[in-house]
Amino acid sequence: MPRSNREPCGTNHTLANPISPDGTPELGKRYVVEARGGRAVRLQQGQTIRIINTHGTQVCDTWAFSTDNPDEFMSWEHGRAWINGLIPVVGDALISNRRRPILTLTADTSPGIHDTLMAACDLYRYMTLGVTDYHDNCADNLRLAMRAIGLDVPEVPQPLNLWMNIPVNAQMQVDWCAPVSRPGDYVDLRAEMDCIVAMSACPQDIIPINGEACMPVEVHFEVHG
Amino acid sequence: MPRSNREPCGTNHTLANPISPDGTPELGKRYVVEARGGRAVRLQQGQTIRIINTHGTQVCDTWAFSTDNPDEFMSWEHGRAWINGLIPVVGDALISNRRRPILTLTADTSPGIHDTLMAACDLYRYMTLGVTDYHDNCADNLRLAMRAIGLDVPEVPQPLNLWMNIPVNAQMQVDWCAPVSRPGDYVDLRAEMDCIVAMSACPQDIIPINGEACMPVEVHFEVHG
Repeated sequence: MPRSNREPCGTNHTLANPISPDGTPELGKRYVVEARGGRAVRLQQGQTIRIINTHGTQVCDTWAFSTDNPDEFMSWEHGRAWINGLIPVVGDALISNRRRPILTLTADTSPGIHDTLMAACDLYRYMTLGVTDYHDNCADNLRLAMRAIGLDVPEVPQPLNLWMNIPVNAQMQVDWCAPVSRPGDYVDLRAEMDCIVAMSACPQDIIPINGEACMPVEVHFEVHG
Repeated sequence: MPRSNREPCGTNHTLANPISPDGTPELGKRYVVEARGGRAVRLQQGQTIRIINTHGTQVCDTWAFSTDNPDEFMSWEHGRAWINGLIPVVGDALISNRRRPILTLTADTSPGIHDTLMAACDLYRYMTLGVTDYHDNCADNLRLAMRAIGLDVPEVPQPLNLWMNIPVNAQMQVDWCAPVSRPGDYVDLRAEMDCIVAMSACPQDIIPINGEACMPVEVHFEVHG
Protein backbone atom coordinates (compact mmCIF):
# COMPACT_ATOMS: atom_id res chain seq x y z
CA MET A 1 0.00 0.00 0.00
CA PRO A 2 1.26 3.54 -0.65
CA ARG A 3 2.38 5.46 2.41
CA SER A 4 0.81 8.70 1.16
CA ASN A 5 -2.93 9.21 1.04
CA ARG A 6 -2.43 11.08 -2.23
CA GLU A 7 -1.57 7.88 -4.07
CA PRO A 8 -4.18 5.47 -5.40
CA CYS A 9 -3.94 1.87 -4.18
CA GLY A 10 -4.58 0.60 -7.73
CA THR A 11 -6.17 1.69 -10.97
CA ASN A 12 -9.17 1.20 -13.23
CA HIS A 13 -10.81 2.70 -16.33
CA THR A 14 -11.20 6.07 -14.62
CA LEU A 15 -7.63 7.14 -15.35
CA ALA A 16 -8.03 6.98 -19.13
CA ASN A 17 -11.50 8.52 -19.34
CA PRO A 18 -11.53 12.25 -18.52
CA ILE A 19 -14.37 14.23 -20.10
CA SER A 20 -11.67 16.45 -21.67
CA PRO A 21 -7.93 16.85 -21.10
CA ASP A 22 -8.37 19.43 -18.33
CA GLY A 23 -11.90 18.53 -17.27
CA THR A 24 -13.63 21.48 -18.94
CA PRO A 25 -17.16 20.42 -19.89
CA GLU A 26 -19.29 21.17 -22.91
CA LEU A 27 -22.24 23.05 -21.44
CA GLY A 28 -25.51 21.15 -21.57
CA LYS A 29 -23.93 17.88 -22.68
CA ARG A 30 -24.91 14.79 -20.74
CA TYR A 31 -21.87 12.89 -19.47
CA VAL A 32 -21.74 9.49 -17.84
CA VAL A 33 -19.89 8.38 -14.73
CA GLU A 34 -19.54 4.73 -15.60
CA ALA A 35 -20.41 2.07 -13.05
CA ARG A 36 -17.55 1.57 -10.55
CA GLY A 37 -15.64 4.58 -11.92
CA GLY A 38 -15.12 8.29 -11.38
CA ARG A 39 -14.93 11.54 -13.32
CA ALA A 40 -13.94 15.13 -12.55
CA VAL A 41 -15.26 18.33 -14.11
CA ARG A 42 -14.25 21.98 -13.91
CA LEU A 43 -16.92 24.48 -12.94
CA GLN A 44 -16.71 28.23 -13.15
CA GLN A 45 -18.31 30.28 -10.40
CA GLY A 46 -22.04 30.53 -11.15
CA GLN A 47 -22.24 27.35 -13.24
CA THR A 48 -24.43 24.51 -12.02
CA ILE A 49 -23.79 20.80 -12.17
CA ARG A 50 -26.81 18.49 -12.30
CA ILE A 51 -26.03 14.99 -11.03
CA ILE A 52 -28.63 12.44 -12.09
CA ASN A 53 -29.40 9.15 -10.40
CA THR A 54 -30.31 7.56 -13.71
CA HIS A 55 -31.38 4.21 -12.27
CA GLY A 56 -32.45 5.53 -8.87
CA THR A 57 -30.42 3.08 -6.81
CA GLN A 58 -26.90 4.38 -7.17
CA VAL A 59 -24.89 6.27 -4.56
CA CYS A 60 -22.61 8.95 -6.01
CA ASP A 61 -19.72 10.10 -3.82
CA THR A 62 -19.08 13.77 -4.61
CA TRP A 63 -16.21 16.14 -3.81
CA ALA A 64 -15.32 19.73 -4.69
CA PHE A 65 -11.89 21.37 -4.70
CA SER A 66 -11.12 25.05 -5.24
CA THR A 67 -9.46 25.59 -8.61
CA ASP A 68 -7.33 28.34 -7.15
CA ASN A 69 -6.08 26.25 -4.23
CA PRO A 70 -6.89 22.53 -4.06
CA ASP A 71 -6.03 22.64 -0.34
CA GLU A 72 -9.44 24.29 -0.02
CA PHE A 73 -12.20 21.74 -0.57
CA MET A 74 -15.75 20.88 0.42
CA SER A 75 -15.50 19.59 3.97
CA TRP A 76 -18.36 17.99 5.85
CA GLU A 77 -16.83 18.29 9.30
CA HIS A 78 -17.05 22.02 8.59
CA GLY A 79 -20.25 21.76 6.57
CA ARG A 80 -22.24 20.05 9.31
CA ALA A 81 -21.33 22.89 11.65
CA TRP A 82 -22.41 25.44 9.04
CA ILE A 83 -25.85 23.94 8.34
CA ASN A 84 -26.35 22.68 11.92
CA GLY A 85 -27.28 19.30 10.59
CA LEU A 86 -26.15 16.09 8.98
CA ILE A 87 -27.84 16.38 5.57
CA PRO A 88 -28.00 19.48 3.37
CA VAL A 89 -31.34 20.64 2.01
CA VAL A 90 -32.17 22.91 -0.92
CA GLY A 91 -30.79 26.38 -0.25
CA ASP A 92 -27.93 25.20 1.94
CA ALA A 93 -24.38 26.29 1.26
CA LEU A 94 -21.87 23.44 1.13
CA ILE A 95 -18.79 24.91 2.67
CA SER A 96 -15.08 24.41 2.44
CA ASN A 97 -12.48 23.71 5.10
CA ARG A 98 -11.88 27.48 5.04
CA ARG A 99 -15.55 27.96 6.02
CA ARG A 100 -16.59 29.54 2.73
CA PRO A 101 -19.38 28.34 0.44
CA ILE A 102 -17.93 26.31 -2.40
CA LEU A 103 -21.26 24.94 -3.72
CA THR A 104 -24.94 25.58 -3.03
CA LEU A 105 -27.57 22.85 -3.23
CA THR A 106 -30.13 24.57 -5.45
CA ALA A 107 -32.43 21.67 -6.38
CA ASP A 108 -33.13 18.13 -5.22
CA THR A 109 -35.95 16.10 -6.77
CA SER A 110 -35.20 13.09 -4.57
CA PRO A 111 -36.61 12.47 -1.06
CA GLY A 112 -33.52 14.27 0.26
CA ILE A 113 -31.74 11.34 1.85
CA HIS A 114 -28.00 11.77 1.47
CA ASP A 115 -25.02 11.09 3.72
CA THR A 116 -22.19 13.19 5.08
CA LEU A 117 -21.03 10.78 7.80
CA MET A 118 -19.28 7.92 6.06
CA ALA A 119 -15.86 7.92 4.46
CA ALA A 120 -15.52 7.06 0.81
CA CYS A 121 -15.08 3.34 0.42
CA ASP A 122 -11.43 2.47 -0.04
CA LEU A 123 -9.35 -0.63 -0.55
CA TYR A 124 -8.99 -1.00 3.24
CA ARG A 125 -12.78 -1.17 3.49
CA TYR A 126 -12.96 -4.01 1.00
CA MET A 127 -10.13 -5.82 2.77
CA THR A 128 -12.19 -5.76 5.98
CA LEU A 129 -15.07 -7.22 3.92
CA GLY A 130 -12.89 -10.15 2.86
CA VAL A 131 -11.76 -8.98 -0.58
CA THR A 132 -8.19 -10.08 -1.31
CA ASP A 133 -7.63 -8.65 -4.83
CA TYR A 134 -8.01 -5.07 -6.00
CA HIS A 135 -11.57 -3.78 -5.75
CA ASP A 136 -12.71 -0.54 -7.37
CA ASN A 137 -13.32 2.02 -4.64
CA CYS A 138 -14.46 5.61 -4.34
CA ALA A 139 -11.24 6.92 -2.78
CA ASP A 140 -9.17 5.68 -5.71
CA ASN A 141 -11.83 6.86 -8.17
CA LEU A 142 -11.38 10.37 -6.78
CA ARG A 143 -7.59 10.19 -7.05
CA LEU A 144 -7.75 8.71 -10.56
CA ALA A 145 -10.43 11.08 -11.85
CA MET A 146 -8.37 14.06 -10.70
CA ARG A 147 -5.17 12.60 -12.10
CA ALA A 148 -6.99 12.02 -15.43
CA ILE A 149 -7.28 15.82 -15.75
CA GLY A 150 -3.77 16.47 -14.53
CA LEU A 151 -4.35 17.13 -10.84
CA ASP A 152 -3.41 15.50 -7.56
CA VAL A 153 -5.60 15.52 -4.47
CA PRO A 154 -4.06 16.82 -1.24
CA GLU A 155 -6.20 14.37 0.74
CA VAL A 156 -9.43 12.38 0.41
CA PRO A 157 -12.05 14.51 2.16
CA GLN A 158 -15.31 13.18 3.54
CA PRO A 159 -17.55 13.14 0.43
CA LEU A 160 -21.12 14.20 0.00
CA ASN A 161 -22.59 10.74 -0.55
CA LEU A 162 -25.55 11.55 -2.74
CA TRP A 163 -28.53 9.23 -2.15
CA MET A 164 -26.69 7.16 0.44
CA ASN A 165 -29.13 6.15 3.17
CA ILE A 166 -27.59 6.13 6.65
CA PRO A 167 -30.33 6.62 9.25
CA VAL A 168 -29.29 7.70 12.76
CA ASN A 169 -31.38 6.53 15.71
CA ALA A 170 -31.93 8.19 19.10
CA GLN A 171 -28.96 6.32 20.56
CA MET A 172 -26.72 7.91 17.88
CA GLN A 173 -26.28 4.55 16.18
CA VAL A 174 -26.44 4.23 12.40
CA ASP A 175 -27.69 1.71 9.87
CA TRP A 176 -26.73 1.05 6.24
CA CYS A 177 -29.78 0.99 3.98
CA ALA A 178 -30.65 0.95 0.29
CA PRO A 179 -31.34 4.32 -1.37
CA VAL A 180 -34.90 5.67 -1.38
CA SER A 181 -34.29 7.75 -4.51
CA ARG A 182 -36.06 7.10 -7.81
CA PRO A 183 -34.87 6.76 -11.40
CA GLY A 184 -34.09 10.19 -12.81
CA ASP A 185 -33.85 11.98 -9.47
CA TYR A 186 -31.24 14.71 -9.59
CA VAL A 187 -29.52 17.35 -7.50
CA ASP A 188 -28.28 20.71 -8.75
CA LEU A 189 -25.10 22.14 -7.22
CA ARG A 190 -24.15 25.72 -8.07
CA ALA A 191 -20.48 26.66 -7.92
CA GLU A 192 -19.83 29.53 -5.50
CA MET A 193 -16.19 29.66 -6.60
CA ASP A 194 -14.27 28.17 -9.51
CA CYS A 195 -13.93 24.55 -8.51
CA ILE A 196 -13.42 21.00 -9.66
CA VAL A 197 -16.22 18.57 -8.83
CA ALA A 198 -15.30 14.90 -8.73
CA MET A 199 -17.81 12.07 -8.63
CA SER A 200 -17.56 8.33 -8.08
CA ALA A 201 -20.34 5.89 -8.92
CA CYS A 202 -19.82 3.86 -5.76
CA PRO A 203 -18.60 0.32 -6.56
CA GLN A 204 -19.87 -1.15 -3.31
CA ASP A 205 -21.30 -4.56 -4.32
CA ILE A 206 -21.00 -6.46 -1.05
CA ILE A 207 -23.46 -4.58 1.17
CA PRO A 208 -26.74 -3.25 -0.34
CA ILE A 209 -25.89 0.45 -0.09
CA ASN A 210 -26.47 0.74 -3.87
CA GLY A 211 -29.77 -1.15 -3.69
CA GLU A 212 -30.76 -4.64 -2.71
CA ALA A 213 -29.38 -6.09 -5.95
CA CYS A 214 -25.82 -5.06 -4.96
CA MET A 215 -25.28 -4.05 -8.59
CA PRO A 216 -23.39 -0.77 -9.07
CA VAL A 217 -24.54 1.17 -12.14
CA GLU A 218 -23.73 4.44 -13.85
CA VAL A 219 -24.91 7.98 -13.04
CA HIS A 220 -24.97 11.00 -15.33
CA PHE A 221 -24.22 14.70 -15.05
CA GLU A 222 -24.57 17.93 -17.00
CA VAL A 223 -23.10 21.39 -16.50
CA HIS A 224 -25.23 24.44 -17.21
CA GLY A 225 -24.16 28.05 -17.41
CA MET B 1 -3.62 32.86 5.41
CA PRO B 2 -1.30 30.00 4.48
CA ARG B 3 -2.28 28.06 1.35
CA SER B 4 -1.37 24.73 2.89
CA ASN B 5 -3.45 23.14 5.62
CA ARG B 6 -0.21 21.95 7.22
CA GLU B 7 0.70 25.48 8.26
CA PRO B 8 -0.68 27.17 11.37
CA CYS B 9 -2.49 30.49 10.85
CA GLY B 10 -0.68 31.98 13.86
CA THR B 11 0.98 30.90 17.08
CA ASN B 12 0.62 30.77 20.85
CA HIS B 13 2.28 29.32 23.95
CA THR B 14 1.80 25.77 22.62
CA LEU B 15 4.87 25.90 20.40
CA ALA B 16 7.32 26.46 23.27
CA ASN B 17 5.77 23.99 25.72
CA PRO B 18 6.27 20.35 24.70
CA ILE B 19 6.22 17.84 27.54
CA SER B 20 9.70 16.75 26.36
CA PRO B 21 11.74 17.40 23.23
CA ASP B 22 10.24 14.47 21.31
CA GLY B 23 6.99 14.12 23.28
CA THR B 24 8.02 11.05 25.26
CA PRO B 25 6.19 11.12 28.61
CA GLU B 26 7.30 10.18 32.09
CA LEU B 27 4.95 7.33 32.99
CA GLY B 28 2.46 8.19 35.70
CA LYS B 29 3.28 11.90 35.76
CA ARG B 30 0.33 14.27 35.55
CA TYR B 31 0.72 16.78 32.73
CA VAL B 32 -1.39 19.82 31.98
CA VAL B 33 -2.83 21.00 28.70
CA GLU B 34 -3.06 24.69 29.49
CA ALA B 35 -6.25 26.62 28.76
CA ARG B 36 -6.43 27.58 25.06
CA GLY B 37 -3.36 25.50 24.21
CA GLY B 38 -2.32 22.08 22.99
CA ARG B 39 0.16 19.31 23.71
CA ALA B 40 1.30 16.10 22.02
CA VAL B 41 2.57 12.90 23.60
CA ARG B 42 4.13 9.71 22.23
CA LEU B 43 2.53 6.44 23.19
CA GLN B 44 3.93 2.98 22.69
CA GLN B 45 1.56 0.20 21.72
CA GLY B 46 -0.14 -1.04 24.90
CA GLN B 47 0.30 2.17 26.87
CA THR B 48 -2.80 4.03 28.02
CA ILE B 49 -3.40 7.76 28.14
CA ARG B 50 -5.87 9.06 30.72
CA ILE B 51 -7.35 12.43 29.77
CA ILE B 52 -8.94 14.21 32.71
CA ASN B 53 -11.65 16.87 32.55
CA THR B 54 -10.28 18.55 35.66
CA HIS B 55 -13.00 21.20 35.90
CA GLY B 56 -15.73 19.19 34.21
CA THR B 57 -16.69 21.81 31.65
CA GLN B 58 -13.84 21.69 29.18
CA VAL B 59 -13.93 20.16 25.72
CA CYS B 60 -10.67 18.49 24.69
CA ASP B 61 -10.12 17.96 20.96
CA THR B 62 -8.05 14.80 20.55
CA TRP B 63 -6.15 13.31 17.60
CA ALA B 64 -3.88 10.28 17.09
CA PHE B 65 -1.25 9.74 14.38
CA SER B 66 0.71 6.58 13.71
CA THR B 67 4.35 7.04 14.72
CA ASP B 68 5.45 4.85 11.83
CA ASN B 69 3.50 6.82 9.22
CA PRO B 70 1.75 10.07 10.18
CA ASP B 71 -0.38 9.72 7.03
CA GLU B 72 -2.22 7.09 9.06
CA PHE B 73 -4.32 8.76 11.77
CA MET B 74 -7.50 8.39 13.79
CA SER B 75 -10.30 9.22 11.37
CA TRP B 76 -13.91 9.63 12.38
CA GLU B 77 -15.37 9.32 8.91
CA HIS B 78 -13.87 5.83 9.04
CA GLY B 79 -14.47 5.41 12.76
CA ARG B 80 -18.22 6.06 12.60
CA ALA B 81 -18.49 3.32 9.96
CA TRP B 82 -16.50 0.94 12.16
CA ILE B 83 -18.58 1.43 15.33
CA ASN B 84 -21.86 1.98 13.43
CA GLY B 85 -22.49 5.08 15.47
CA LEU B 86 -21.58 8.67 16.17
CA ILE B 87 -20.08 8.35 19.66
CA PRO B 88 -17.67 5.65 20.85
CA VAL B 89 -18.40 3.75 24.05
CA VAL B 90 -16.13 1.75 26.33
CA GLY B 91 -14.71 -1.20 24.41
CA ASP B 92 -14.88 0.47 21.01
CA ALA B 93 -11.85 0.59 18.77
CA LEU B 94 -11.06 4.04 17.40
CA ILE B 95 -9.82 3.38 13.93
CA SER B 96 -7.49 4.98 11.47
CA ASN B 97 -8.00 6.06 7.89
CA ARG B 98 -6.47 2.68 6.99
CA ARG B 99 -9.32 1.01 8.94
CA ARG B 100 -7.11 -0.37 11.69
CA PRO B 101 -7.55 0.24 15.43
CA ILE B 102 -5.18 2.98 16.56
CA LEU B 103 -6.71 3.45 20.04
CA THR B 104 -9.31 1.67 22.16
CA LEU B 105 -11.61 3.49 24.57
CA THR B 106 -11.08 1.40 27.70
CA ALA B 107 -12.68 3.58 30.38
CA ASP B 108 -15.02 6.58 30.56
CA THR B 109 -16.27 7.87 33.93
CA SER B 110 -18.31 10.65 32.29
CA PRO B 111 -21.89 10.32 31.02
CA GLY B 112 -20.39 9.35 27.66
CA ILE B 113 -21.32 12.45 25.69
CA HIS B 114 -18.59 13.20 23.15
CA ASP B 115 -18.56 14.44 19.57
CA THR B 116 -17.16 13.11 16.32
CA LEU B 117 -19.14 15.37 13.95
CA MET B 118 -17.64 18.84 14.24
CA ALA B 119 -14.35 20.07 12.85
CA ALA B 120 -11.75 21.48 15.19
CA CYS B 121 -12.30 25.19 15.62
CA ASP B 122 -9.96 27.16 13.39
CA LEU B 123 -9.22 30.77 12.63
CA TYR B 124 -11.86 30.73 9.87
CA ARG B 125 -14.44 29.70 12.47
CA TYR B 126 -13.61 32.68 14.66
CA MET B 127 -13.66 34.98 11.65
CA THR B 128 -17.25 33.88 10.97
CA LEU B 129 -17.99 34.68 14.64
CA GLY B 130 -16.73 38.24 14.17
CA VAL B 131 -13.19 37.93 15.51
CA THR B 132 -10.78 40.12 13.56
CA ASP B 133 -7.45 39.43 15.34
CA TYR B 134 -5.77 36.09 15.93
CA HIS B 135 -7.77 33.79 18.18
CA ASP B 136 -6.34 30.61 19.68
CA ASN B 137 -7.93 27.63 17.95
CA CYS B 138 -7.80 23.86 18.10
CA ALA B 139 -6.55 23.37 14.53
CA ASP B 140 -3.51 25.55 15.18
CA ASN B 141 -3.03 23.97 18.61
CA LEU B 142 -2.71 20.60 16.88
CA ARG B 143 -0.22 21.93 14.35
CA LEU B 144 1.78 23.75 17.03
CA ALA B 145 1.76 20.89 19.53
CA MET B 146 3.10 18.53 16.88
CA ARG B 147 5.68 21.03 15.71
CA ALA B 148 6.76 21.50 19.33
CA ILE B 149 7.94 17.87 19.29
CA GLY B 150 9.46 18.14 15.82
CA LEU B 151 6.61 16.83 13.66
CA ASP B 152 4.33 18.21 10.97
CA VAL B 153 0.76 17.12 10.47
CA PRO B 154 -0.23 15.91 7.00
CA GLU B 155 -3.72 17.36 7.52
CA VAL B 156 -6.09 18.32 10.34
CA PRO B 157 -8.35 15.29 10.77
CA GLN B 158 -11.77 15.38 12.37
CA PRO B 159 -10.93 15.20 16.10
CA LEU B 160 -12.52 13.17 18.85
CA ASN B 161 -14.07 16.08 20.74
CA LEU B 162 -14.08 14.72 24.27
CA TRP B 163 -17.06 15.94 26.33
CA MET B 164 -18.41 18.10 23.51
CA ASN B 165 -22.20 17.94 23.57
CA ILE B 166 -23.77 17.96 20.11
CA PRO B 167 -27.21 16.33 20.26
CA VAL B 168 -28.77 15.15 16.98
CA ASN B 169 -32.56 15.23 16.65
CA ALA B 170 -34.86 13.03 14.55
CA GLN B 171 -34.64 15.51 11.67
CA MET B 172 -30.84 15.06 11.63
CA GLN B 173 -30.33 18.58 12.92
CA VAL B 174 -27.78 19.34 15.63
CA ASP B 175 -27.48 21.68 18.58
CA TRP B 176 -24.46 23.07 20.42
CA CYS B 177 -24.73 22.52 24.19
CA ALA B 178 -22.61 22.79 27.31
CA PRO B 179 -20.84 19.64 28.49
CA VAL B 180 -22.63 17.28 30.89
CA SER B 181 -19.36 15.94 32.30
CA ARG B 182 -18.26 16.50 35.90
CA PRO B 183 -15.01 17.63 37.50
CA GLY B 184 -12.49 14.81 37.45
CA ASP B 185 -14.23 12.74 34.77
CA TYR B 186 -11.73 10.94 32.61
CA VAL B 187 -11.37 8.68 29.61
CA ASP B 188 -8.69 6.05 29.10
CA LEU B 189 -7.40 5.43 25.59
CA ARG B 190 -5.12 2.46 24.98
CA ALA B 191 -2.68 2.64 22.10
CA GLU B 192 -3.16 -0.19 19.62
CA MET B 193 -0.07 0.89 17.69
CA ASP B 194 2.79 3.26 18.46
CA CYS B 195 1.19 6.65 18.01
CA ILE B 196 1.28 10.32 18.90
CA VAL B 197 -1.79 11.66 20.69
CA ALA B 198 -2.39 15.41 20.44
CA MET B 199 -4.86 17.32 22.58
CA SER B 200 -6.22 20.85 22.51
CA ALA B 201 -8.06 22.46 25.44
CA CYS B 202 -10.63 24.10 23.18
CA PRO B 203 -10.34 27.91 23.30
CA GLN B 204 -13.94 28.50 22.22
CA ASP B 205 -15.10 31.43 24.38
CA ILE B 206 -17.87 32.86 22.20
CA ILE B 207 -20.44 30.06 22.24
CA PRO B 208 -20.98 28.01 25.46
CA ILE B 209 -19.53 24.74 24.19
CA ASN B 210 -17.07 24.79 27.13
CA GLY B 211 -19.81 25.56 29.64
CA GLU B 212 -22.17 28.45 30.16
CA ALA B 213 -19.40 30.67 31.53
CA CYS B 214 -17.60 30.61 28.16
CA MET B 215 -14.32 30.32 30.09
CA PRO B 216 -11.83 27.86 28.61
CA VAL B 217 -9.74 26.09 31.26
CA GLU B 218 -7.02 23.46 31.38
CA VAL B 219 -7.28 19.68 31.24
CA HIS B 220 -4.76 17.09 32.44
CA PHE B 221 -3.40 13.79 31.23
CA GLU B 222 -1.24 10.90 32.37
CA VAL B 223 0.33 8.00 30.51
CA HIS B 224 0.44 4.59 32.12
CA GLY B 225 2.35 1.50 31.00
